Amino acid sequence: MTDRAALDAILDAGLVAHVGVVDQTVPFVLPMGYARREDQVIVHGSSGSRLMRALADGSPCCITVTLLDGLVYARSAFESSMNYRCAMVLGTADRLTGDDELDALRVLSDHLLPGRWSDIRPPSAKERAATLTVALPIEEWSVKVSVGGPEDDPTDLVNEPWASTWAGHVPFAQVMLPAIADEHVPTGVPVPSYIPERT
Amino acid sequence: MTDRAALDAILDAGLVAHVGVVDQTVPFVLPMGYARREDQVIVHGSSGSRLMRALADGSPCCITVTLLDGLVYARSAFESSMNYRCAMVLGTADRLTGDDELDALRVLSDHLLPGRWSDIRPPSAKERAATLTVALPIEEWSVKVSVGGPEDDPTDLVNEPWASTWAGHVPFAQVMLPAIADEHVPTGVPVPSYIPERT
Repeated sequence: MTDRAALDAILDAGLVAHVGVVDQTVPFVLPMGYARREDQVIVHGSSGSRLMRALADGSPCCITVTLLDGLVYARSAFESSMNYRCAMVLGTADRLTGDDELDALRVLSDHLLPGRWSDIRPPSAKERAATLTVALPIEEWSVKVSVGGPEDDPTDLVNEPWASTWAGHVPFAQVMLPAIADEHVPTGVPVPSYIPERT
Repeated sequence: MTDRAALDAILDAGLVAHVGVVDQTVPFVLPMGYARREDQVIVHGSSGSRLMRALADGSPCCITVTLLDGLVYARSAFESSMNYRCAMVLGTADRLTGDDELDALRVLSDHLLPGRWSDIRPPSAKERAATLTVALPIEEWSVKVSVGGPEDDPTDLVNEPWASTWAGHVPFAQVMLPAIADEHVPTGVPVPSYIPERT
């Protein structure tokens, strides 16, 4: 699929990307919070992380975001599968610095914790130094989507016992449970309205 | 973390792994259904897939399973994060064949669609030929877990306005929605009891 709108929709709906980087000849795949900023995928991490440094140094990388949408119960093992939406972006990332990095950190916060940025302490100089932020340009990418019920072999629809076997799909939904305040929140401070109680 | 029981618990709770393989110098990260079989992680795919063939040929790989458990609302941008459980297994996979492969396909089905195997048509010789199944030994691995509320900088707990800012975490839950039969299921065939209506 080459529909850029489909790519953006997946990137904008996910929270965790799996980022692949090669160290020597070995691939490492790490989960990272991410955000799309126009034609870039932004990730950040510790400046002490070897893989973040490899990313920032322009090592080839692959950022994959998968949203698991359900299970598909076919009439055969072969056609049994899962429904999902997957976005993959390949390339080499650029290290962000200065105000551009700060903007990217805000975009990350706005994506992962919408509404939160104006309520929290911005990163200090020391925290900024401990953070590497990179942007992977959305240039080489692909989208794969699987939806709906099984695509069974036609013979399985007429031959028993498979023809009388229940088949279909089970959709998943991700819900947010009620927010849990930590022990330092003063009495009477409400849960902010930007935190959905349950979606 | 080096607790093998923790690794197994994550692998046994997840459905999708992100599998990293290197093609030339470029890492590719693909989502795949997987299952743990004792000291192996099993994945399978099309024998026409270049990356499956690379896996089966013993190309170094990384299989990462991440369970996203929630969002962490700290008092600073720096400490804001997500809760998750992540299992990573590294190494080179072995191609499975014959009865060993068939057993692995059953284990995959039992993990992803518990209870389903005995109700569905087993793979035909042609389907088997179209499938590559590999096992990655659980030898080199790591586990990373983040739970609970924010670990804020102590100064943010006493300096306003951060000290009066709500902070805490929002747990996620994945639920299964009601099963949807496809159009070929004869009237009166019930949803099998092994498909949870909503969990």
